[in-house]
Amino acid sequence: MLRTPIKHCRNCGTAVVYRIPDDGDTRERAVCQACETIHYENPLNVVGTVPYFGDKVLLCKRNIEPRWGKWTLPAGFMELGETVAQGAARETVEEAGAQFEMEGFFSLLNVPRVGQVHMFYRARLLSDVFKPNFETLEARLFTEDEIPWGELAFGTVKETLKYYFEDRRAGQFSIHAVDIV
Amino acid sequence: MLRTPIKHCRNCGTAVVYRIPDDGDTRERAVCQACETIHYENPLNVVGTVPYFGDKVLLCKRNIEPRWGKWTLPAGFMELGETVAQGAARETVEEAGAQFEMEGFFSLLNVPRVGQVHMFYRARLLSDVFKPNFETLEARLFTEDEIPWGELAFGTVKETLKYYFEDRRAGQFSIHAVDIV
Repeated sequence: MLRTPIKHCRNCGTAVVYRIPDDGDTRERAVCQACETIHYENPLNVVGTVPYFGDKVLLCKRNIEPRWGKWTLPAGFMELGETVAQGAARETVEEAGAQFEMEGFFSLLNVPRVGQVHMFYRARLLSDVFKPNFETLEARLFTEDEIPWGELAFGTVKETLKYYFEDRRAGQFSIHAVDIV
Repeated sequence: MLRTPIKHCRNCGTAVVYRIPDDGDTRERAVCQACETIHYENPLNVVGTVPYFGDKVLLCKRNIEPRWGKWTLPAGFMELGETVAQGAARETVEEAGAQFEMEGFFSLLNVPRVGQVHMFYRARLLSDVFKPNFETLEARLFTEDEIPWGELAFGTVKETLKYYFEDRRAGQFSIHAVDIV
């Protein structure tokens, strides 16, 4: 189960049933028994940045669940009305309180097990002073050798950092599409 | 307004109110007045392919709204449990009935006005015979000169095709991140 099942119609409040709609669809959807509204459930985008300062990368120690106390790149759910880059920048301001310039798109990571797509941009930090919000216990710069690989919050963060340092050593950044199974 | 407003709680059916939740959030969400479930609304991913056969690209004439009768690349809403590439391949089978091999990630297009992110992969067609489903009136190959530029269904399709033929002429494909405003 990827999501908590829908029990009631968002339009009229009546109980829904999961069934294949009569419109040619091939998947079960939550369908309202009264007003016939079909409720679609789709993957969510998590958007963030790889903020770097010289040879160091900024990580945030999470003050929220899941993975409280683990280290992450600044990232969060993309909101309506924004682009991937705007969402990634917003999360970097919120979770790290960083000053930065957005650079290129860097990684696209599928996490079908939880119905998510994670996307990261590179971001060049303009200062090494950070003012994170309540979601972050600590925001700190790490060289590749200092990265707490065993204490990272998510597989998508680990993969993105791995590719970032590989590309940095190679002297050229490319875009990486990866499946986390 | 990007989405039809939520009126009732998906968990218990009670009427919701739009307000900023008490958990540090900064945006208004539909919050249930009885069970306090917070209902998040987020962007949707539309995933598809640029299916090519020699110097031609496959387009599908839409038999569904919106944009009935207009031409599109095969694409549709990404489903739970699949990767971007799997969703793009599924839509190419459904809408075009094509046989193909998936190639590289090609374009990421933000459409914040409608809360969507469109993503396209390149796909090498193995046959020029197509068996589209009911969603498609006609599936046909077009050279660059034959593309019905004024009859394309979506701006994201136009941008993706434009970049595809530019890259093809240049002899090298890259990945394009574009905002459609």
